[in-house]
Amino acid sequence: MTPAQLSDLLARVRKNHPLVHHITNYVTVNDCANITICAGGAPIMADAIEEVAEMTGIVGALVLNIGTLNHDQVESMIAAGHVANEKKIPIILDPVGAGATRFRTETARRLLEELDITILKGNAGEIGVLAGADGKVRGVDSAGLTGDPIAIAKAFAASSGLTVAVSGPTDIVTDGRRVLLVENGHPMMGGISGTGCMAASVTGAFAAESDDPVQAAAAALAALGIAGERAAARSRGPYTFKVALFDELSLLTPAEFGAAAKVRSI
Amino acid sequence: MTPAQLSDLLARVRKNHPLVHHITNYVTVNDCANITICAGGAPIMADAIEEVAEMTGIVGALVLNIGTLNHDQVESMIAAGHVANEKKIPIILDPVGAGATRFRTETARRLLEELDITILKGNAGEIGVLAGADGKVRGVDSAGLTGDPIAIAKAFAASSGLTVAVSGPTDIVTDGRRVLLVENGHPMMGGISGTGCMAASVTGAFAAESDDPVQAAAAALAALGIAGERAAARSRGPYTFKVALFDELSLLTPAEFGAAAKVRSI
Amino acid sequence: MTPAQLSDLLARVRKNHPLVHHITNYVTVNDCANITICAGGAPIMADAIEEVAEMTGIVGALVLNIGTLNHDQVESMIAAGHVANEKKIPIILDPVGAGATRFRTETARRLLEELDITILKGNAGEIGVLAGADGKVRGVDSAGLTGDPIAIAKAFAASSGLTVAVSGPTDIVTDGRRVLLVENGHPMMGGISGTGCMAASVTGAFAAESDDPVQAAAAALAALGIAGERAAARSRGPYTFKVALFDELSLLTPAEFGAAAKVRSI
Repeated sequence: MTPAQLSDLLARVRKNHPLVHHITNYVTVNDCANITICAGGAPIMADAIEEVAEMTGIVGALVLNIGTLNHDQVESMIAAGHVANEKKIPIILDPVGAGATRFRTETARRLLEELDITILKGNAGEIGVLAGADGKVRGVDSAGLTGDPIAIAKAFAASSGLTVAVSGPTDIVTDGRRVLLVENGHPMMGGISGTGCMAASVTGAFAAESDDPVQAAAAALAALGIAGERAAARSRGPYTFKVALFDELSLLTPAEFGAAAKVRSI
Repeated sequence: MTPAQLSDLLARVRKNHPLVHHITNYVTVNDCANITICAGGAPIMADAIEEVAEMTGIVGALVLNIGTLNHDQVESMIAAGHVANEKKIPIILDPVGAGATRFRTETARRLLEELDITILKGNAGEIGVLAGADGKVRGVDSAGLTGDPIAIAKAFAASSGLTVAVSGPTDIVTDGRRVLLVENGHPMMGGISGTGCMAASVTGAFAAESDDPVQAAAAALAALGIAGERAAARSRGPYTFKVALFDELSLLTPAEFGAAAKVRSI
Repeated sequence: MTPAQLSDLLARVRKNHPLVHHITNYVTVNDCANITICAGGAPIMADAIEEVAEMTGIVGALVLNIGTLNHDQVESMIAAGHVANEKKIPIILDPVGAGATRFRTETARRLLEELDITILKGNAGEIGVLAGADGKVRGVDSAGLTGDPIAIAKAFAASSGLTVAVSGPTDIVTDGRRVLLVENGHPMMGGISGTGCMAASVTGAFAAESDDPVQAAAAALAALGIAGERAAARSRGPYTFKVALFDELSLLTPAEFGAAAKVRSI
């Protein structure tokens, strides 16, 4: 992605304030709402079966996050997902903790089977589990996977027909043909709860304004990563970092974004 | 309202720490708890049908917020509301996203019909929808209403027998006879998730200590608005603003409040 | 506890990052997740009956918090608790609001009866209610108990076979034989929502790395209390205090902890 493409995409998000419908966990939901606003989007959280289909019908993207899944919420994800698929609204799936319990693994697989997911964003362990590549998950944290993560993500994206985004020190985004690597970010992002969930929310906002899921995901991860780099320079510990992370994403201009993003294709 | 009336009301809240029972959404619930404390109240969140009636029986105010409503929660709202009505405990209803989906619009209408709501607090779009005045809602944000918001709020309050508070750059509070306008606040309040919900929580704390819902709502909106003005002067971006908003409300003294509030009747 | 014992325990938590499974309320859940990380642990939140047993099977401690309990969640607590008991995983119970409603009181009693709870951590009112000592609870805040709290906690711990931790200006931790008093902390900790819940989370992380529940609970309360003392020195109001509380716990080194902890046995 060129700096101009990155700048343009952020500028569109900031101008159009795309609605991003979240069906997500109750742990980091407030962080997801605020980071969506800081990116330029407008968050909506709704998970009642009575309204999810109608709500999804009006939005720019749908984010599904299984961080505290339960039976009713999964049914709402399916119902909302069908509407998103009909209306060509991009769906971002964050399979939080896939591999930690059978319920999470099977739910993530079910969502991938029943819905046309646009972007699957997870850590290396979660993606490894879903790709059948011996991923290891400790609670909701990655404990790595066996093999080359780029090759695994690429093969999984190609076979499943979706864009795969693997978060890590270097983020990997691939649709099976193209591979973009994102080298923005800071280790302090791993020192608070919720940065993974936030990355999915920002990806939702960007995907709503882009026809290219690979570019949308890479740009989103770069934007949050740059905010993390800037926040780390201003913080005393993990929570001043968290506070600064929101500020810095909000203050990031399209021009600064194009200049600071480290996105390269391989 | 005179500065002395405003000061006295805040002083009462600070002295008596009224319990404010919330049945609310899981997105901004932590913000609602903390802002209630900063105002001087004591928050309780409980939504299980097994306990809501008993919990409401001991509190000073009940706040109902449909931000992430579901079937069980609505039943709990009705049960708690009946107890509040029997015991003359004021109920504040925040119809988050009314107009965005039928479920929200119908639930807000049902609560208004089955319960004796004391104060209905919403944005212009939500109030417009409920008043039948062609309100427009984009997700959970107002996209305005057709007509004069003061006249619409006044007519709706008069016909429905409740106090209507419309949040906006100038807040409108009316019971159909009196109209108070509140001109405190700052645009940064719209840059974070939850300020609308927080306004309902502070209104709950104030309504618990006042016999006059119009004065209670206007004072609450003024107090939060002043905190917003002061927070904006101390913040770098939206999340340092959020942090400062809580601090400033907590630090606001009754004397300062009376002096800084911009509440006028028309 | 000696400074060396305290230092060693914190060092173990920081080295091993014990998984702490929470079944908890939706008000302070994000705070619980982040404070667990700041202590050195790794939080997992999961409450679906489909997965709680499996999730508990892999963790170092289980934290049960009834702050916004409902029927399904209580069943999940029982199921997870049975697994924890089988596998000798310590369970920390925070009976939030026991005494405020029958549902909370009865649920806390049921959990104490059906499960082998390791540490019961509550405020004086909640512990008083559960000990049958005329505890008084106002919403979710303690309004004290009748009698000597140390004697009541000691007798209750002895008769029930668990470790009781009573939070307050001086925290009391006892297993019925030994009594440890913790004199760290700051009044600002009572000015935000969630410090009680956070104390249970930190206790979970420490209990996962200790064979002695009395020492684990006392050390956890001391660590959070020291963070509170340091945060108070850096904050303007309650929310800058909250932000600093996380930072300070994260920055607290084992050596500093041993030196600053005020834990004494009586």
